[in-house]
Amino acid sequence: MSTARPLGVGLLGLGVVGSAVAAGLMAGRGDIAGEGARRPALKRALVRDLSRKRAISLDPRLMTTDPSAILDDPSIEVVIEVMGGEHPAFDYISRAIRAGKHIVTANKEVLCKRGDELFGLAASHGVRLLHEASVGGGIPIIGPLSSDLLANRITSIRAIINGTTNYILTKMAAQGAGFDQVLSEAQQLGYAEADPTADVDGWDAAYKICVLARVAFGASVPLEAVYREGIRGLQAQEFRYAATLGFTIKLLAAARMEQGGLLVRVHPALVPSTVPMAKVDGVLNVVEVEGDLVGPLWFQGRGAGPDATASAVLGDLLRIARGSEIRKQAGASRGSHQVRLALMDGHECKYYFRLVCKDRPGVLAQIAGILGRLQISIASVIQMDANAERGEADLVIMTHPSLEKNVQTAVREITALQVVARVASVLRVEGY
Amino acid sequence: MSTARPLGVGLLGLGVVGSAVAAGLMAGRGDIAGEGARRPALKRALVRDLSRKRAISLDPRLMTTDPSAILDDPSIEVVIEVMGGEHPAFDYISRAIRAGKHIVTANKEVLCKRGDELFGLAASHGVRLLHEASVGGGIPIIGPLSSDLLANRITSIRAIINGTTNYILTKMAAQGAGFDQVLSEAQQLGYAEADPTADVDGWDAAYKICVLARVAFGASVPLEAVYREGIRGLQAQEFRYAATLGFTIKLLAAARMEQGGLLVRVHPALVPSTVPMAKVDGVLNVVEVEGDLVGPLWFQGRGAGPDATASAVLGDLLRIARGSEIRKQAGASRGSHQVRLALMDGHECKYYFRLVCKDRPGVLAQIAGILGRLQISIASVIQMDANAERGEADLVIMTHPSLEKNVQTAVREITALQVVARVASVLRVEGY
Repeated sequence: MSTARPLGVGLLGLGVVGSAVAAGLMAGRGDIAGEGARRPALKRALVRDLSRKRAISLDPRLMTTDPSAILDDPSIEVVIEVMGGEHPAFDYISRAIRAGKHIVTANKEVLCKRGDELFGLAASHGVRLLHEASVGGGIPIIGPLSSDLLANRITSIRAIINGTTNYILTKMAAQGAGFDQVLSEAQQLGYAEADPTADVDGWDAAYKICVLARVAFGASVPLEAVYREGIRGLQAQEFRYAATLGFTIKLLAAARMEQGGLLVRVHPALVPSTVPMAKVDGVLNVVEVEGDLVGPLWFQGRGAGPDATASAVLGDLLRIARGSEIRKQAGASRGSHQVRLALMDGHECKYYFRLVCKDRPGVLAQIAGILGRLQISIASVIQMDANAERGEADLVIMTHPSLEKNVQTAVREITALQVVARVASVLRVEGY
Repeated sequence: MSTARPLGVGLLGLGVVGSAVAAGLMAGRGDIAGEGARRPALKRALVRDLSRKRAISLDPRLMTTDPSAILDDPSIEVVIEVMGGEHPAFDYISRAIRAGKHIVTANKEVLCKRGDELFGLAASHGVRLLHEASVGGGIPIIGPLSSDLLANRITSIRAIINGTTNYILTKMAAQGAGFDQVLSEAQQLGYAEADPTADVDGWDAAYKICVLARVAFGASVPLEAVYREGIRGLQAQEFRYAATLGFTIKLLAAARMEQGGLLVRVHPALVPSTVPMAKVDGVLNVVEVEGDLVGPLWFQGRGAGPDATASAVLGDLLRIARGSEIRKQAGASRGSHQVRLALMDGHECKYYFRLVCKDRPGVLAQIAGILGRLQISIASVIQMDANAERGEADLVIMTHPSLEKNVQTAVREITALQVVARVASVLRVEGY
């Protein structure tokens, strides 16, 4: 047990994650950091409602509804922010940094949207801004990227980092059910929010891949620069056809050095059913990292849950308690420098198209003509389910590697064809 | 670029790993550690033979055959040891520590056999003894266990941490070939040493699981306390029968808190073909960690190779260059305390037996009688290949969870039966 003066901790937010963090501190999980470490002591927790019932029994005197009771208390040296969202988290964190307090946060949204300001502020005030919990729950990924792997140039990150959508996609694939039905089941089970926008439209994954890109590439990636596509548009047929063709559908978040620069993207993708990424199911998360020395690495675990998130928050807190690396830190461990960002237009991959076509001769010739003119080479064409009554059929086309820009042009031109009822789906195939 | 005084580095060993480390330093991989960091500068490398041709061209004046030129040079603040083996590495490392130098080592053998002394010495001299490269090549695992996951009580580690044996087992399973044939192929390809003892008899995996047990459980595990069984005895039939029954054979290294204490073991095991562990093939390594907060985690990557190992060595060096955590450290991050060690005798799991029996009535009754008396409950019995000429048949028995001690007694009693030619194989089945 350390004899050093305790390390005063203030907690912003006492929801499920905040309660797990508080419980961990009270259970003495801060006391195992080894010699020379200071013991974290919870001084105060900011709550919205003092009377609300909570999972833990915390001395009521520790709770406050006044942020200044934490931000202006000089005995509090570390502020843990687990409220989430940009406001008021940004204001609280920046006030705490200005007051010379170290920050531990699980908040990917504020780090994505206001990271430049916050890391800059932390650097100029000589405090630490740690955020292992912001990506992948308790999976150590920020630590390895910012420390263990520092001798590598990171070339690629690909990840499944949103548990809600992965749960939905896993269920859709297993049950052949539609998106709306699976979403409402997920909501009932607590795996999806009442307003599922942040998850199903890919915002949460986009925040997280921005956070990873900063740590891995030293890149400041504005949210607007992330190509983002969610899973709302996916239909039951896509899962059936993908399985027939030997693929699974996953919502991938990726940041990779391509010819034009760093391309950051979030979208559903067809992944070969045989590769490990295809088997990361349910609420599991995975982050695949490629470094130029170390080669490909794979970090997998539970991507969410109060205890897993508390594991990461407390791990960061213990870093501070051990006094490690408390010195001026740059915006990111790799320094912050201008990284050229690439546009999705220049991305090249194989594509899956599903076209609902009039079931009549000559259809394929017209479609193939457009694709050929745009340098999109067809790998296979399969006519799937036909609807005889309506005289329509599903035409599934898999292409060889093609340029995104050309594919988008092709989609416009094919949509305009008389013989095509609609382009029902365009999905990227992730290469392995 | 840092303006601070360079950090003097001495390198013990300039083989493939040492050369990759030196190449990394010369390529400026030490210069990216961010503000406030010191730039590592290679001062001198210890070699056995100055005239030997090497993969890198190093200024000959940097090479020496005299260890004192490194160990007694006050301008060298960090010693990187990549010679391997207990002697003379132990002497060099302890001399360097006594001279106040930080140590970065890839040497699992010396850490396993002399860890108590070395970590104790490092603590009393206030220097760091870092060893990410000692387990799993470039996979970050020592870092996560000793820092990111520090708020967890680790309950279990299971790993495939020897690339040579995993390569051999993968080939034996795929080709149906025998051990000797695959070993000699592996030797020709450079995946196995001329003397393969350290790998195939499980010593290397045992060293590594001891190193992991120290970091994860704060336990000092003497090599003699590790239950160790290699892969030399495995025969082609086992792979065929295991596949028929839905299993793959892997050399597992495990450290887990069981009822009697911490059980540390290395042995081949039947792993269900459907679980991820079964699919870690070839020279890949994986470490599966369970923490009480974070749940199960999975760290996978290339377990060997000069560049991957250099990634870990340089990562540790950059930790020191950034000045992080340079304070008194205990023997392990979790402190060193007396951890009770369990004996293999008390281990419980399912078992696979292959008995070569006389092909005559009543055989099974005698065997079942012995098993029943020893509380070993039979899950299935299958008669596999029979050798009509010799009047023998392979009898494969799968049991329900049984006690190791009873299984060993059963093996002795069954071996003594007139109707049993021999107990050809006893393998543990790893539960998932």
